[in-house]
Amino acid sequence: MSQKKTQSSLRQKIFNLVQHKYFTGTILSLIIFNAIVVGIETYPTIYQSHKQLFFLIDKALIWIFTVEIVLRMMAERKLSDFFKSSWNWFDFLIVAAGHIFIGAHFITVLRILRVLRVFRAISVVPSLRKLVDALLLTIPALGNIMLLMSIIFYIFAVTGTMLFQEVAPEYFGSLQLSLLTLFQVVTLESWASGVMWPIFHELPWSWIYFVSFVLVGTFVIFNLFIGVIVSNVEKADAADKVDEMAELKNEVKELKQLIINLSKEKSS
Amino acid sequence: MSQKKTQSSLRQKIFNLVQHKYFTGTILSLIIFNAIVVGIETYPTIYQSHKQLFFLIDKALIWIFTVEIVLRMMAERKLSDFFKSSWNWFDFLIVAAGHIFIGAHFITVLRILRVLRVFRAISVVPSLRKLVDALLLTIPALGNIMLLMSIIFYIFAVTGTMLFQEVAPEYFGSLQLSLLTLFQVVTLESWASGVMWPIFHELPWSWIYFVSFVLVGTFVIFNLFIGVIVSNVEKADAADKVDEMAELKNEVKELKQLIINLSKEKSS
Amino acid sequence: MSQKKTQSSLRQKIFNLVQHKYFTGTILSLIIFNAIVVGIETYPTIYQSHKQLFFLIDKALIWIFTVEIVLRMMAERKLSDFFKSSWNWFDFLIVAAGHIFIGAHFITVLRILRVLRVFRAISVVPSLRKLVDALLLTIPALGNIMLLMSIIFYIFAVTGTMLFQEVAPEYFGSLQLSLLTLFQVVTLESWASGVMWPIFHELPWSWIYFVSFVLVGTFVIFNLFIGVIVSNVEKADAADKVDEMAELKNEVKELKQLIINLSKEKSS
Amino acid sequence: MSQKKTQSSLRQKIFNLVQHKYFTGTILSLIIFNAIVVGIETYPTIYQSHKQLFFLIDKALIWIFTVEIVLRMMAERKLSDFFKSSWNWFDFLIVAAGHIFIGAHFITVLRILRVLRVFRAISVVPSLRKLVDALLLTIPALGNIMLLMSIIFYIFAVTGTMLFQEVAPEYFGSLQLSLLTLFQVVTLESWASGVMWPIFHELPWSWIYFVSFVLVGTFVIFNLFIGVIVSNVEKADAADKVDEMAELKNEVKELKQLIINLSKEKSS
Repeated sequence: MSQKKTQSSLRQKIFNLVQHKYFTGTILSLIIFNAIVVGIETYPTIYQSHKQLFFLIDKALIWIFTVEIVLRMMAERKLSDFFKSSWNWFDFLIVAAGHIFIGAHFITVLRILRVLRVFRAISVVPSLRKLVDALLLTIPALGNIMLLMSIIFYIFAVTGTMLFQEVAPEYFGSLQLSLLTLFQVVTLESWASGVMWPIFHELPWSWIYFVSFVLVGTFVIFNLFIGVIVSNVEKADAADKVDEMAELKNEVKELKQLIINLSKEKSS
Repeated sequence: MSQKKTQSSLRQKIFNLVQHKYFTGTILSLIIFNAIVVGIETYPTIYQSHKQLFFLIDKALIWIFTVEIVLRMMAERKLSDFFKSSWNWFDFLIVAAGHIFIGAHFITVLRILRVLRVFRAISVVPSLRKLVDALLLTIPALGNIMLLMSIIFYIFAVTGTMLFQEVAPEYFGSLQLSLLTLFQVVTLESWASGVMWPIFHELPWSWIYFVSFVLVGTFVIFNLFIGVIVSNVEKADAADKVDEMAELKNEVKELKQLIINLSKEKSS
Repeated sequence: MSQKKTQSSLRQKIFNLVQHKYFTGTILSLIIFNAIVVGIETYPTIYQSHKQLFFLIDKALIWIFTVEIVLRMMAERKLSDFFKSSWNWFDFLIVAAGHIFIGAHFITVLRILRVLRVFRAISVVPSLRKLVDALLLTIPALGNIMLLMSIIFYIFAVTGTMLFQEVAPEYFGSLQLSLLTLFQVVTLESWASGVMWPIFHELPWSWIYFVSFVLVGTFVIFNLFIGVIVSNVEKADAADKVDEMAELKNEVKELKQLIINLSKEKSS
Repeated sequence: MSQKKTQSSLRQKIFNLVQHKYFTGTILSLIIFNAIVVGIETYPTIYQSHKQLFFLIDKALIWIFTVEIVLRMMAERKLSDFFKSSWNWFDFLIVAAGHIFIGAHFITVLRILRVLRVFRAISVVPSLRKLVDALLLTIPALGNIMLLMSIIFYIFAVTGTMLFQEVAPEYFGSLQLSLLTLFQVVTLESWASGVMWPIFHELPWSWIYFVSFVLVGTFVIFNLFIGVIVSNVEKADAADKVDEMAELKNEVKELKQLIINLSKEKSS
């Protein structure tokens, strides 16, 4: 039992350390430092002449971040508590990947991982974490409309491949290429000048395909847009309307009580 | 009468079968299978070497879907009930077209029909069907603004053809070409770099035509956009406001009754 | 006095004629016929071989429209009443211009006027007229933000001309050319690929000019957009809120009266 | 004390002068005149032949504006009062810069300063000043989302530079170039035709980078957009709801008082 107590008090100390504002501050500074370092590394002349230094800095950073994660794990009552938060999973995977791929031959993978560590700035700053959580929460509401969009994309991609495979192999050569081209078309980028006109000059009826896809695609995205705006306005509205209404209802209830009392007094 | 009863009980059995979740599930799986098959068919090497197999799969699918439609027709009390739903019409036409065009020489038409069958995924999944119904319901409200847009398009197309027919025959060579070009311009795609600048270098006053069309076109679309947002916010607002207000009104009415009772008691 | 009476009853008859649904219907049909004719005229082969016919049709149409306008003028109590509506001005000018320019050497001006007559479809159909009135009503509210936009455009145009006149004379050769280029940039059309990159390769600091204009320009347009949405939602909201609230207030007032009566009864 | 009084009365006179509508009117006219002059100066032939005149006009304008600023400073009780308004700082800096750079060899800097003076039209017209104040007030609310956008931009820029430095040096040659390219991509301008396709033909997996950046970038901007709309609709709603509600509450309170009085009367 005494051992458990000691362990518990150690956990408490680690918890206090991890929750300390200087702890978060230091980690955030190191993430920013990490960001600057990967930025400088993109300049080949600097990188080549200080390769060893960059290697050492990276080694140091990865171990500091590992210690940070381990401390945060130890601060929890149970290890499973740590993995309840998806942000902790995110931190854990980013750091763990750095260890796993360290011996990798693909130097680019390692370097990209180092860049992705900068995303940890979001998980460390609470206001950013809340913002990203809010942004991600809007996605499930879009589920059905994204499913519909996928069906439309797929049908148009298959049709496009069948129809224009030979005329425009650079845009509709295969199913995956058609999907990429349709994504370009739905952003309205060079859909006419780049994609439609060259095909149009070969197959004059091809405008039906493009115009209908642009109309359907933008119409669905437009409705997705409206859906999100409306649901947000509604939510915000409901929130502050409730307060006002609740106050008024209380007033009316008090009034009722007064009248009931009055009527009782009378009958007595 | 006994015959009618038998018939009715057969109808009931078919109805139960058609409404069964496994029935819908099987049809949905077959539609997804159909989608995958048409996707694979777009790869010429695979298609050429398994032409016979793809033909057989298609034959099988079209007969299964035909049986499905016939069963769903028989499940209804009257055949005309089946055709009351526009989704049933959609299903019927997609499948019927497969039979009609089966002997067609235009192999592409047949293949596109096979792709369009994937759209049946929408008519089978209730949540998607509701979503598409909702999307289509926003169209009638846009009737007037689309009529206005058509008038603007037509006038600009005729004017554009008259003015730029000789200078830019690839964009304004005929009325139908001008309409297509104006559709490109209203999506703001290469309207300046592709369409206006070459004409501008020949006819310096041509910018008036393009700038006014871009301003008028985007202004009308922008108002169409706002109209839809506002009507949706309003609808959503009205829906949840009514509840709150109705509750409050009930409270006030109860109050009134109390006072009236009080006043009656007094006079008695 | 008898003459006045006759005149008045003639006016009444004309008024009845002008208001008759067949009158408006006929005019609308003629406008649509006019639209089809100008559409056909854009095909040079048809136009050249039937030049005389098109000339006669146009002559007939212009006189019919003239008679229509004159009748509508006579239907009014005073001529000045006719010119109170800006739609009447619009109709009058479109038709009058056809007479003024009939001897013009510039055949294109005449033909464009004939196309503009199609716009009269808007002034004849009441629902379209209301829609356009509503659209035009949103413009004054945008006055200040459009003034701000003009100042920003002018300053950037002058600066752009000064800075890039020699490097990119095709886009910034003169003040008017710069304004047109900036309009292209604010629609985000080829602002980078067409306009910025070639200048950027000569003057590496030029990105500051373009990025700041894109940011400021889209930010202002974006706020204009929001302003219109908000004011519309508000208006719509206010409209249906007033009804609900008014009802509730009436209920509360009735309640008050009941209590006052009760208190009077008591004291009496 | 008498000196102070004199000084005070002088201050009062200057204050009256500065607040006079003709004073503001004159300054606004001079700013517009200044705008026209800098506009004319962009035409090289006119500028070269009247260089001396333009120089004199500019000298005159700068001294008039200096006198204006000094008078407005003297009209304030304390000099520090003048610098409390950021618009006064803006006016002061624009005019002061004209004096500082007058001997500058960089003639372009001087000319741009002359153009920037046109911005003073905003600080002089109250309605424009209010509009710009309102626009700038929306920026702090966007703080977090702009921080998030910066992190996303930075990570994609570093990754892009690492991955495409050698394949597309004209777009991803260095970190600053990548940032500029990503800004172009997020405006959806030639992101596919200009930037992605050439890289795609070298590195077929590169579409993942571009598609994910377009999706993430537009998604964040889209949410920023929605956030601003919602907060504005809410604000506007709250403003006019309060009035209606306050009125209703007052009615209910009066009612309460009436009932309390009734109950008192009774017990007495």
